Formats: sequence, structure tokens, C-alpha cells
Amino acid sequence: MSSSEACILCTKLMYGIIIIILLLTLSFTGVNSVTVSDEVVKLPGQPPVTFKQFAGYITVDQNKQRSLFYYFVEAASNSSSKPVVLWLNGGPGCSSVGEGAFVEHGPFKPSGRVLLENDYSWNKEANMLYLESPAGVGFSYSVDQSFYTSANDVITASDNLAFLEKWFEKYPEYKNRDFYITGESYAGHYVPQLANLIVHSKAKINLKGIAIGNPLLDFDTDFNSRGEYLWCHGLISDATYDMFNTMCNYSTIRRQAQSRSMTPTCSRVANQASKEIGRFVNAYDITLDVCLSNVFSQSLVLDQIQDEEAKIDVCMEDEMIVYFNRKDVQTALHARLVGINKWTPCSEVLSYDMDNLEVPMTPVLMSLLKSGVRVLVYSGDQDSVLPLTGTRVVVNGLAKQLGLNTTLPYRAWFNGNQVGGWTQVYGDVLSFATIRGASHEAPFSQPERSIALFRGFLAGEPLPAAANEIAQKPKAEIPRL
Amino acid sequence: MSSSEACILCTKLMYGIIIIILLLTLSFTGVNSVTVSDEVVKLPGQPPVTFKQFAGYITVDQNKQRSLFYYFVEAASNSSSKPVVLWLNGGPGCSSVGEGAFVEHGPFKPSGRVLLENDYSWNKEANMLYLESPAGVGFSYSVDQSFYTSANDVITASDNLAFLEKWFEKYPEYKNRDFYITGESYAGHYVPQLANLIVHSKAKINLKGIAIGNPLLDFDTDFNSRGEYLWCHGLISDATYDMFNTMCNYSTIRRQAQSRSMTPTCSRVANQASKEIGRFVNAYDITLDVCLSNVFSQSLVLDQIQDEEAKIDVCMEDEMIVYFNRKDVQTALHARLVGINKWTPCSEVLSYDMDNLEVPMTPVLMSLLKSGVRVLVYSGDQDSVLPLTGTRVVVNGLAKQLGLNTTLPYRAWFNGNQVGGWTQVYGDVLSFATIRGASHEAPFSQPERSIALFRGFLAGEPLPAAANEIAQKPKAEIPRL
Repeated sequence: MSSSEACILCTKLMYGIIIIILLLTLSFTGVNSVTVSDEVVKLPGQPPVTFKQFAGYITVDQNKQRSLFYYFVEAASNSSSKPVVLWLNGGPGCSSVGEGAFVEHGPFKPSGRVLLENDYSWNKEANMLYLESPAGVGFSYSVDQSFYTSANDVITASDNLAFLEKWFEKYPEYKNRDFYITGESYAGHYVPQLANLIVHSKAKINLKGIAIGNPLLDFDTDFNSRGEYLWCHGLISDATYDMFNTMCNYSTIRRQAQSRSMTPTCSRVANQASKEIGRFVNAYDITLDVCLSNVFSQSLVLDQIQDEEAKIDVCMEDEMIVYFNRKDVQTALHARLVGINKWTPCSEVLSYDMDNLEVPMTPVLMSLLKSGVRVLVYSGDQDSVLPLTGTRVVVNGLAKQLGLNTTLPYRAWFNGNQVGGWTQVYGDVLSFATIRGASHEAPFSQPERSIALFRGFLAGEPLPAAANEIAQKPKAEIPRL
Repeated sequence: MSSSEACILCTKLMYGIIIIILLLTLSFTGVNSVTVSDEVVKLPGQPPVTFKQFAGYITVDQNKQRSLFYYFVEAASNSSSKPVVLWLNGGPGCSSVGEGAFVEHGPFKPSGRVLLENDYSWNKEANMLYLESPAGVGFSYSVDQSFYTSANDVITASDNLAFLEKWFEKYPEYKNRDFYITGESYAGHYVPQLANLIVHSKAKINLKGIAIGNPLLDFDTDFNSRGEYLWCHGLISDATYDMFNTMCNYSTIRRQAQSRSMTPTCSRVANQASKEIGRFVNAYDITLDVCLSNVFSQSLVLDQIQDEEAKIDVCMEDEMIVYFNRKDVQTALHARLVGINKWTPCSEVLSYDMDNLEVPMTPVLMSLLKSGVRVLVYSGDQDSVLPLTGTRVVVNGLAKQLGLNTTLPYRAWFNGNQVGGWTQVYGDVLSFATIRGASHEAPFSQPERSIALFRGFLAGEPLPAAANEIAQKPKAEIPRL
């Protein structure tokens, strides 16, 4: 090679390096340019799949540099004819990507160094969009950190709408697709408010319905149902239940705890209940084992054989946290840590305006129903935090206020040949359903029953009844003792 | 061989045959001679074990030819230092050998043609005596069939005492051993009444304590707790719960159903509840799958893969029925069908005096406690037939009437590192405990937690608390939503 040839090669190499550096810079600054693909080629430890995944940021406020992180999973088959479903977790402050996608109903579940396939992934039924919202949650961020102390329901709904409009611009093939919003727990606030904003902003989004699980809808009704629930499931004594009824109810305890103004009486009742329940019960699933995720449990792994028959990995949340803190995972997801050192499933920087919890959601739901948006409210029936008993009363009240008649009387619904839970439908637009044996995060503990419920919801059909052939089975009138 | 040699051989053979015939005749007439051993050499399909088993009959009324069938399992180790524990099922009319021993806590569980070992067999803790009582139940019989229409609590207790006295004569090595009586459901009547008879008859039986699970103790309290239980577990609607509270409560429904005198109002409430609950929920364990034990389920076995992860064989009762109707099993157990063609888990010949259900057991329990007999009342917390909520109220009331102070406040108890249920102790002699995630037949659905409870009961110690090392784990004050 001559020196001039060498020089040309050298120049080419330099150009190459400059281009690579530019590309790397672009990808690492995470600018939401639609020219940069958000496709996730492969997640570390992931088994091969036929559907595509995307993840990245959408800036919802250019000035304040507020960017929301999403993870989008195409439907596993016939994605072009399936709806788009947004999923939101609650908290306020918890991650939809971490909890919703990687613990509840995404295509994969972390297990050690690898991802296992989830047989009951909701992307078998829809194109699933998981959004970490508001900024400050998970990988979503605001460079202007003052945002974190001003976050509330109004801002969240408005940011989420801004996100959606930009997201549909970025993925135009999904723009006219049927669209649903789903979520659980405090998303009982996020989901109806976002849906209502879509309806009233006349955004070009083809919103068909919403589904909310174990939602916070009415502060007093929801929280006061807790005492009764704990009592009749055996977690507190008759004496303590009496204290809830006569001295200080649970909504008052919650209100005082949030505002750090506990009266001695309420403090006594709360402490008494906590003492009886103990510290080793998962309040979100009173029958499920708890994860002993510390040095003690590590020694257990060494000392004894694990229960091979356990269906539910109660330590999945811990696995998920480890997974999302791996650098290779963050890189694969095009995710960055901005202003934080560690990814956490529930935000440690956000100070959400807790007065928002008191805002009743029934008027918002009424407005949605009047606009023709279908509403499903469901309850994992093992949850003591937002129990089915309160939720059912709220839905009853909603139907009554709207003058909706019962179009499907309270009855068991079926998944296969076993009871999946109970359901009631009002005016063909408002549904209540329980998921039997399910936790606050229902799809985590009852994945098969949850996807059956999800399928029914998308189809806009009542949940399955018993098949005729099995419905014939006789049943004794008086149970033997 | 000469002809005389052949003749001697022939004579010997004949004698031998005659002796064999005599022995066979004796064993098949099933006379309760103590000279005929009741040892069960081997049950068909049984794995090898180190402990001995016995089964057979004790005649409790020679005139009326009333004989009770028992199955006795020696403790698996150190049987000579372990107590004797009698177990009784309820019904009235259900088999302790079938249900208690072969579905709940005996050493074996039937599975197809074989018996599987039960890791949580109560004979690991005690010498277990299972008694089918009264006559007319299981293999127990009365040749005088008029007995079957006159059976009641008084006769049952007296026959059971007669049985015990003769049994201890037959097995003298167990005579001075610590003795406990246990049982469930309607045995909430049998157990205290038998215990009370032992105490007041001055029988030479070393009775230390009784344990009763999901017992019927107080007709109104127990049955009325059912409506509330069904409601707060999501099986009935708010509207139907309201009907229970305002139109016709469950104890009235039960009373009217038993006497075949249903009023139209109560009938309407009962039908409404039945309709909502549906026919495919196990009332004895509201979260457990049901067994689809018919042609339909047989086709299922052919058509689809069974759930490999299912921990509990919900069809075990069916397997047990098949097992007990095998001739080789009946022969091995020295059991006979007298006056019936088929062994059934709950009697089809007995007409128990159902007015007995109304007799309150609290006075009997009070008398026992005053005599120094320890009492444990426990509840599988998934049972809707005799729910924990009613049972707990009865035990509270009992403690109050006796002036017993709480010596161990309501708290969680532990099996290993997970919560096994909740417990409260009064005056160190009366205990209440729930078994978490357990059915009406608690040892069937939660075998490991049940044997832990049984162990604690025999030891006369409070149920285990959380170990110190795990008790340190912090817990958030306000659950996230």
C-alpha cells in the first residue's frame, strides 16, 4: 500500500469513526427523533419471539425537558387487526413497565439471568403499550426536578394525552386502531381521567373502553371496606373490628397517616390492627406467601429445598428490580437514568399531591359512560388494600346514579370449567367482575383467569358462563357438616 | 411313596384344609374376638412402612348387634411414648376412615390403583384412631336397622364411649397413654359430648384435650355467619346480602330446609344466593377448583393435558370411594358391608335426629374447660359452610362466659417462615386458630399447616410466632396503591 493509499484509508476510517461517534451520541442523548428507531432488537436473556418490541422516550414538555418512557409490544399474531391497549400502574409513582409488563402481563418474566416466556401475556390479545407515568416514575424523567413536587392528577392526565398524541404520530399504522386504556390501583384515577380528557379534547384517538382493576375510586368507601375485609378473612380479631367501627375507621386512619396528623385514638386502632395482621402477610394478597428477600432468605436457599410445586414466584418483584438495573437491559431498552442512580419500581423522587386521592372518580366514570365509553371495573378478590367489597359498592352506586339496569345479574363466570370469579353487568356498558384467588396485581397471581377477563373485555361480551354440558351437574341443597 | 404314607399325607392335608377353613370362617364372620388379630398386614397398593396398622370391629351393643368399625395407625416413630388421638368426622353420617384417614391426615392417599404416602400424616405425631360412628356410617353397622332412625347425639356419645372402653381393653398397652379427641364439622357435637361423658363417667381414659375444626357449635351464630362470609368473599351480590339481613337469614333457611317447611320468602332468598354462587364452587373451599367427576371430566382427560402444577387432587374423594369399594381393600381392612351394597363416604341409611343440630355446645365446652380439659377450636378460613367468623364469635363468647382472660392476643402464627393462620388463647386452656388457605376439611387442602397446628395442640403450646431473625423485616406503614 502506498502512503497516499494509506492516507485515503486513514481519512475514510476517521470519517467512519466520526459517524459512529455521532450515532452513539444521538442514541445516548435519547432525543425523541422519529428517525431513530425505538425497536428493541433483543432483551438480554430473552427467548426468540415472532413479534416486535419497541421502547424509548416521548418528550411531553420540550421546555421543561419532561420525557415519558414506554415499552410497546406488538400482538403475537395478527397485530394489524388487533387493538392498541395502554396499561398504567398506580402508586402514585409505580412503574407500568416494571410491574405491569415484567411482573403482570407482559410477554416475559425475569428469572435469574434470563427471561421466561409468559403463556398468558396480554399481547396474545392486543398490541400492548406500557407507559411509565408521570415523569419521575421508572425511566421517565423531568430534567426540571421541581416537577416532582408539583405532580398531580391533572398534570398526569395531560402529559399522558400529550404522550399518546405523539406516540400515535410516531406509530401511524396504529392511529385508527381501536384503543383501550387499562390499569390498576391508583390508575383508578389515571385511567378515567385520561379517557375523559381524550373524549373532551376531541383527540383523534379511537377510544372504545377502559378497564380498571382493584382501583381507588372513592376514598371513604374503598378504604373503609378494609376493616371489614380483614375481619371476615380472619386477619384481625372481633375486638379490633369493633374498634374500626366505633373508634376510628380506616379512611380516617389513611387520611391522618398521609397528612402526618395521627390522633392517639386512630394511632391505637391502626397499631392494634397492624400487630394482629403481623408483618408477614402480603396485604395485596392475603393468602399468598411473602417473599423473604434478604440475607435470611438467601440462607434458606442454601439450607433447604425450595417448594417445587409453588406456582407463583413470590420473589418476582425482586427479580424484576435486579433486571431493570442491569446496564445491558437499560441499553437494550434505550432507557436512561436521569437524576437518579438506580431504577426503582416505585418512584423515590416523586412527591405526588396526595390530596388527589380524595377526589371521587364516580363523576368522571359517569361522564365517560354517557359518552359511550365502556367501563369494566374488576377486583382480585384476595386484596385487602382496595377490597372487592368497597369496589362493588361504588359500581352499584354508579349504576344507580346513571339509572342503568342490571343487564346481567350477579353470577359466576368461567375460565375453562372452573369458576374464574363473579360478574354483574349494568346497561350493557358498565361491568363489575371479580377474579377468584387473585391479588391486587391480579394478572400476577391469576394469569390465566386475568387474560380470560381481558379477552372478554376487548370482545365487549359478557364473561363466559358455565358450558351447557357442565351446567347440568346437580348440587346438594343443604351442605353436609 | 407307599399307600400308607400317602394316606398319612392325605389325612394331614385334610386337617390342614379344615383348619384353614375354620380360620377363614372366623375371619369372615368378623366376630370381635380379641384372639383374632385386627392387624392390617398390607393395604392393596400400599408402599412399605415401618409402623403397624389395625382395623376391625368393636361391638358396642351385643343384643342389638351394633358394631363400630375403626382403623388404627401406630405412630410412625416412638409410638410407645406418643399419645393416642381419636378422630371423628361429622355429617352427621360421614366416615372418619374414608374422609379423615384417606383424604385428610392418614398415612396414605388413594391415587388410581395405588396408595401414595402422605408426608403430613398425623401419625408422625400420634397414634391415630379413626372411628366410623355412629353405627350406619361407613363400615359400622347395626343388624337391628331400627337403630338408623333413632340415632342422635346421646346415643352416639354413649356408643363411642363403649367403643373406647373396649378398644383400650383390646389394646392395653395404650390404656394409660395421654388421650385426645379431635374431629371436624358436625364432630363439633360428637367430640365435646364424648369428652364430657368420659369426664363424668369416670372412665379410666387419660383425656387431656380436644380439638375441633370448622365445628358446628351454635346453630344461629354459625349459620348466620354464612351470608356475611359469602358476601365479603364476593360470591353473592350486595342486593342478596341485603336480603339475608332483612328478609330471611341463613339459620332460618337451614332450619326450614331441614324440616321441609320453606316459606316462599326464605325460598326466594336461598334460591337467589344459590343462583349467584353457582353450582361450580366448592362451598367447603371457595377458592379451590371443583372436581368434575363425570363423563364430561373423563372426556377432558382424553382431550386435554391436565394441570401438572395443581397441588391438591380435588378428585381425591372420588378416588377414595373407588378404593373403599374394592373387595381386596375391604378384605385387607377386615371390613364388611352389612345391610348395604356399597360403601359410601356419608351414610345413606342413617336418619339422624336433625333437631340435635340446634343443641348449643357452649355449655358442654364450658363444663369440659372447668374440668381442666384443654380445648382448641380451629377454622380452615376458606370454608363458607361453617365460616371462621361465626366460630370466632362463639369462642369469644365462651371465654367471656367463663371469665377467661386473653393470655395470647390475636396474632399470626407461623409454619416455617410463612403465616399459617391467626390465633388467640384464653386462660391458657381455650384456643382459637385459623388455618390460612384451608378448606372445611383443613388437613386436605393445607396438610403442612394442619399438622403444624396439630403438633402445637398436642404439645399444649401456643402456635409458633415469627422467628426473631425474620421478625426484624420492616413493613411500610401505608400500602401503595
